[in-house]
Amino acid sequence: MNSFKTIEWKDDRVLMIDQRKLPGEEVYVECTTFEEVAECIRKLVIRGAPAIGIAAAMGMALGAAGIGNDCSYENFEERMKAISDHLALTRPTAVNLFWAIARMNRLISKCRGKEIEEIKNLLITEAINIQKEDIETCMQIGENGSKLIRENSVILTHCNAGGLATAGYGTALGVIRSAFNQGKNISVISSETRPVLQGARLTTWELERDGIPVRLITDSMAGHLMSKGIVNSVVVGADRVASNGDTANKIGTYSLSVLAKHHGIPFYVAAPTSTIDTECLSGEDIIIEQREPEEVTHIDGKRISAEVTAINPAFDITPAENIECLITEVGLFKKPYTKSLGRLKKKDQ
Amino acid sequence: MNSFKTIEWKDDRVLMIDQRKLPGEEVYVECTTFEEVAECIRKLVIRGAPAIGIAAAMGMALGAAGIGNDCSYENFEERMKAISDHLALTRPTAVNLFWAIARMNRLISKCRGKEIEEIKNLLITEAINIQKEDIETCMQIGENGSKLIRENSVILTHCNAGGLATAGYGTALGVIRSAFNQGKNISVISSETRPVLQGARLTTWELERDGIPVRLITDSMAGHLMSKGIVNSVVVGADRVASNGDTANKIGTYSLSVLAKHHGIPFYVAAPTSTIDTECLSGEDIIIEQREPEEVTHIDGKRISAEVTAINPAFDITPAENIECLITEVGLFKKPYTKSLGRLKKKDQ
Repeated sequence: MNSFKTIEWKDDRVLMIDQRKLPGEEVYVECTTFEEVAECIRKLVIRGAPAIGIAAAMGMALGAAGIGNDCSYENFEERMKAISDHLALTRPTAVNLFWAIARMNRLISKCRGKEIEEIKNLLITEAINIQKEDIETCMQIGENGSKLIRENSVILTHCNAGGLATAGYGTALGVIRSAFNQGKNISVISSETRPVLQGARLTTWELERDGIPVRLITDSMAGHLMSKGIVNSVVVGADRVASNGDTANKIGTYSLSVLAKHHGIPFYVAAPTSTIDTECLSGEDIIIEQREPEEVTHIDGKRISAEVTAINPAFDITPAENIECLITEVGLFKKPYTKSLGRLKKKDQ
Repeated sequence: MNSFKTIEWKDDRVLMIDQRKLPGEEVYVECTTFEEVAECIRKLVIRGAPAIGIAAAMGMALGAAGIGNDCSYENFEERMKAISDHLALTRPTAVNLFWAIARMNRLISKCRGKEIEEIKNLLITEAINIQKEDIETCMQIGENGSKLIRENSVILTHCNAGGLATAGYGTALGVIRSAFNQGKNISVISSETRPVLQGARLTTWELERDGIPVRLITDSMAGHLMSKGIVNSVVVGADRVASNGDTANKIGTYSLSVLAKHHGIPFYVAAPTSTIDTECLSGEDIIIEQREPEEVTHIDGKRISAEVTAINPAFDITPAENIECLITEVGLFKKPYTKSLGRLKKKDQ
């Protein structure tokens, strides 16, 4: 396990490490309402597909806690629907957000006839369970994926699919952690991941804390290093995987997949099965979040460009054909993904 | 022409716009010695292959001006050799630096027997001529290249191959300026070009000043936008072109060339013939400058990552096969470049 807490349910509050302030400051934000949790997701206090799923589940538990015990079940259900909608509107791309909200709502549906106080407690337990399961899931992803990591290899990763993006072990970084913990002599190259710099700020921070060798590059350097034979594999996380294997992940992932293919370097996606959206047929059906131009035109509040506008898609789609293998907690999936993922019975549905 | 002066010889001093401070501040640095010019090149006060060639030539003229008129020709030549070496050691990749120094030294060789005062004046005139010719050259590059720019097209450019990288019109941006001035309805996408952000800071600044529509992206977004059909062509500058067409340019150029090829988008290099190094057989012979890791780990003096190191090659090599066409002042060169460039008689040699 890693040495920090991404998110925690504590004394009827939700604590999150403020990922906007890392690595400079290690401060925790405390949420006492579901609206505060939603704001934290929207403003990237917490980010990473599995982590925002956990945050949304805890947000729902917080929202439920704010409802009086004398509320009728129908009224409770209606208010929880509004809370779900509020949390679901925070970010559009990562499916884990909707997956976690749906799981919490399924629990509510099963609780008809129970005391409201009991339902509220069950929701807290469910949110904490989602968090606990995520750690087990990520460790299993790590175990499964580590077999793909060769001794003496240099692994390129993008953005942060680490402990900070999950309950604490990571998906792509879970694979790297497991390989490292098995004693493999490996090192990591982290692309900085502009505009929000999750690679520079978060991936280097958590790998350095765990003593895993890591070097930083700008996003523009990946192709050059691949051409020099310096990169042996690429491992990234995912925000949503369509049933044909097309994968939405942090902007820049698609370019890396094309470059990896061009250089004959294996490109792996590591994600829990909760990131697989079986209702989504292909990448074309995935909504790509467009964020404010200021994330690009400004760094740390200071304008870096002339008074021009910017394009700012937060994610892109990597076509299935560029993905050598999808690493999940239940095993490795290979092409053709429509077939291999078709066999996967989605949990909790 | 554009509305600013990149570099100017004035009253026996060299003035340069401080490109490190753009776009926030428009300040000029004044150099009175060749050492100051060398420091300006090294610290990126001035950058861009043609511009640092002009700076080196003016640096030599400044260095000569510092030598007494009673000096013997032999002594003068020896001191100018030391000044050349000092200026040549500033940056290794852009060939225009060495080209300009060699041209100044050829003039000195021809001046044996002349008064030192006269040689000094001739060197000033030569440096100013190099600058004047660069503007004519760039306008001709623009004219030649503009034929490749279709009406209603969106052009991606990387780094700054503009007026700021030359005496004032630009190579890649010269092509864009010419097409725009011909009334073509075009717009530009400028990649920010980490780590030094020349695209964000300089390209948006000079295009916005000239009223040419420009939008900013992070380097990681190019592939995604190409896949969406948003980019019609890519035009970049060059720091050195080998005789087989392999081209050294700002880090990230190689990735863009692979991505452009993958998407069937034409990829053009615009450069004066002084950037073609006929003695260099291929990209493998080009020295890639490695700069300090701090350019990557810090932005605006503030650390963005954990305490890790970074890899920081300033340039990469785009193989000739990825280049649709090389745009120069004497015309367009196409594959096979060994043949087409072989016909080129290098000026001033």
